[in-house]
Amino acid sequence: MARRKQIDLMRPLRRKETRRVARILQRLDEVQIAAQLDNAPPEDQDRVLQMLSVERRAAVFAELREETAAEIVRRLAPEEVAILLDDLDSDDVADILGRVEESLLRQILTRLDPEDADEVEQLLGYDENSAGGIMSLDFIRVYDSATVAEATRVVQEVEDPPDQAFYVYVIDEDDRLVGVVSLRKLLTGRRDDSIREVMEPELVYVDRESDQEDVADVAMRYDLVAVPVVDEQRRLVGVVTIDDIVDVIREEATEDILKMAGAGEELFETRSFWSSFRARMPWLLAAAIGGVLVAVALSGFESALEAVPVLALFMPVVAGMGGNVGTQSSTIVVRGLAVGYVESGALGRLVFREMGLGLTLGALYGLLIALAAPFVGTSVADPVALGIVLMAGMMGSMTIAATVGTSIPLLMNRLKIDPAVSTGPFVTTAVDILGLMFYFWLATVLLDVPM
Amino acid sequence: MARRKQIDLMRPLRRKETRRVARILQRLDEVQIAAQLDNAPPEDQDRVLQMLSVERRAAVFAELREETAAEIVRRLAPEEVAILLDDLDSDDVADILGRVEESLLRQILTRLDPEDADEVEQLLGYDENSAGGIMSLDFIRVYDSATVAEATRVVQEVEDPPDQAFYVYVIDEDDRLVGVVSLRKLLTGRRDDSIREVMEPELVYVDRESDQEDVADVAMRYDLVAVPVVDEQRRLVGVVTIDDIVDVIREEATEDILKMAGAGEELFETRSFWSSFRARMPWLLAAAIGGVLVAVALSGFESALEAVPVLALFMPVVAGMGGNVGTQSSTIVVRGLAVGYVESGALGRLVFREMGLGLTLGALYGLLIALAAPFVGTSVADPVALGIVLMAGMMGSMTIAATVGTSIPLLMNRLKIDPAVSTGPFVTTAVDILGLMFYFWLATVLLDVPM
Repeated sequence: MARRKQIDLMRPLRRKETRRVARILQRLDEVQIAAQLDNAPPEDQDRVLQMLSVERRAAVFAELREETAAEIVRRLAPEEVAILLDDLDSDDVADILGRVEESLLRQILTRLDPEDADEVEQLLGYDENSAGGIMSLDFIRVYDSATVAEATRVVQEVEDPPDQAFYVYVIDEDDRLVGVVSLRKLLTGRRDDSIREVMEPELVYVDRESDQEDVADVAMRYDLVAVPVVDEQRRLVGVVTIDDIVDVIREEATEDILKMAGAGEELFETRSFWSSFRARMPWLLAAAIGGVLVAVALSGFESALEAVPVLALFMPVVAGMGGNVGTQSSTIVVRGLAVGYVESGALGRLVFREMGLGLTLGALYGLLIALAAPFVGTSVADPVALGIVLMAGMMGSMTIAATVGTSIPLLMNRLKIDPAVSTGPFVTTAVDILGLMFYFWLATVLLDVPM
Repeated sequence: MARRKQIDLMRPLRRKETRRVARILQRLDEVQIAAQLDNAPPEDQDRVLQMLSVERRAAVFAELREETAAEIVRRLAPEEVAILLDDLDSDDVADILGRVEESLLRQILTRLDPEDADEVEQLLGYDENSAGGIMSLDFIRVYDSATVAEATRVVQEVEDPPDQAFYVYVIDEDDRLVGVVSLRKLLTGRRDDSIREVMEPELVYVDRESDQEDVADVAMRYDLVAVPVVDEQRRLVGVVTIDDIVDVIREEATEDILKMAGAGEELFETRSFWSSFRARMPWLLAAAIGGVLVAVALSGFESALEAVPVLALFMPVVAGMGGNVGTQSSTIVVRGLAVGYVESGALGRLVFREMGLGLTLGALYGLLIALAAPFVGTSVADPVALGIVLMAGMMGSMTIAATVGTSIPLLMNRLKIDPAVSTGPFVTTAVDILGLMFYFWLATVLLDVPM
């Protein structure tokens, strides 16, 4: 893979083999060290950082996950933090400091270079999920009156150039964004040409308030490595670079996955027992209330259960298969909505197809369960009737599940409620209640048991 | 957002308002048209493409999702396809043609420019999920004997430059990769300096066979907008650009989400009834077999059920809450493994914490259910004992679920089995069997009912 092989640092750290750790640190690059520290216990993180030279320490720190960096910041003296943050771009500093307490934030800001501190404060003013919250204030711009040679000089003379400088933005006398030039175009353009002649005027940009997901969408659709951010007057105020866009795409996917399972929004929340507890509790509460409702709904069938207790043995499979199909349907819809594969408008067509799928899959697996039934538990008086109850029950449960699992996220989305977070308990409860009631109702009709 | 507003094309298309469609097409850019066509029915896709000029048609086609493009390719004559593909980079052509049948592929290849056809064939030879399968063959390289001025001339003279040219790669006389120069460095370097002096020698690269997820990881970790691909002799053979890396990240997330729900691997599979059926069937089969096992496992408790049928009313909540916690745990682990947040080695520590969480959450919600129980169904002789059975049952079920949900994906990962695809049915079945058996066993002990 990369030229330097990743070597495990964790085991020698755990064993306190300091010399060996020092040797390994020399053979790893900053990115590799940061990748290992991200998953290390706090004391090992601190120990390794102490072992590094000041320059390397800052370089490793710059490559850490922002959550890890924020935790380290909390453990250090504000003076030390200021040194570590000095080399970072202001947007990265803002991401890290946005995670620490207000009082600590103030202490650190006063110790930063005043200009950097201003930038960080400005960035912290934006919603962290907006274009403003992820944009960088380091970008190269030239006025539209410049020639190619003058624009080239601007690039050459930029002090402390941004890590990701691939475009030069062109603004008019009112600072409004009018075009963009790639460095390649600048390199190939004739020196005396006006920058207007080589720039791309057909501009794609976002507002400071744009949701970060929309920014990522624009970057992906237009294959951009940086998206310019403008204010109300279309004045260029920042640039969202591809490294932050990649983070957004990954984070949003993680968020969707976790939300669908009711397991919080960030993997970082699972780091400690109590934050994990808090993240997972609300969703389980909804499910528990649903569970009580299911018990209430089914209580009308107690005498049927008493008469044919074998019915209870198949409750898990009837409800479970429904739940599985419902989860499949809602997952397809939630992810489809997230990546633009499914549109809210498609409700009718989608629900219809999913109903068909639920019915077909229900018939298939209902038959399988019905055929297996005679071999399970005490034989009932009429195994054929039980088979029919099971097969029809499965078909009902799975059709209901596919329908509910498809329509709830689509409706949530229309109501502007996040479908990822709100689908799960609804679908499970609805499927349990409707599916199992249908199953028991079938049993009372076909098996001639008391209601 | 972007300068041009997205205007809905679908409704006028459905209503066959051809004039209106033509007017809207003039007001949209190629990316916006492609975004709408991606979700349109085939006949509308064809109709819109026919309405566009030859140049715009190719431009819109270039922006379509590769699955959509492949379907359109299947509907057109090979001559027309060759015209549409002419402007695309060979890696994009390979992505599209990799999805069509061999015979059609041959017909199209013979109609392409022979050099392009060669490149496409070469790329099709690699696994589509490897660096080779997603790399581009268009990149700029210079020998390490060049000066900055000479390298600049190479960039200036490149015919048909790649869309995403941000770096120049430096190779030695044996074509081996020795460094990389950003265009900014080239622009700011002194003209007579050797390229060796301005290049970055500390190179990160991947092999042709590297998994695309590893390529994405390298790009993210090192903040690269392009990752060079080398052969066994470290000769530069291609470059994976950030647009493809972004696609990989998004696709892999979608794949994980869908696999965890047993709903296939690609959203595209859900496009038709039968491909969706095929994608969802196997997982459901595993769950159905699990369901039969659950019924068999519980059949020993038939007489308990007959004596206290109210026990059955709470089966869904006991099993369901277990299932929910198990899904939360396995989701955290599966996603954590995918993004490098969780390491296989963490098994012991993670399982221990999740057990604690399951127990705590089980106690909380078990108490809630126990308190609700007296209001559900026929009153039992001993409501306190039933409450204890329910609370302890929930604690057992949820602790088992958290433990199983955490350890199965970690073990799968150690065994090099994809944890996303194989976790679901195992966890559900295990939780249903173990959780419900524990619950019934408690009932037989505490409620004094027959075994």
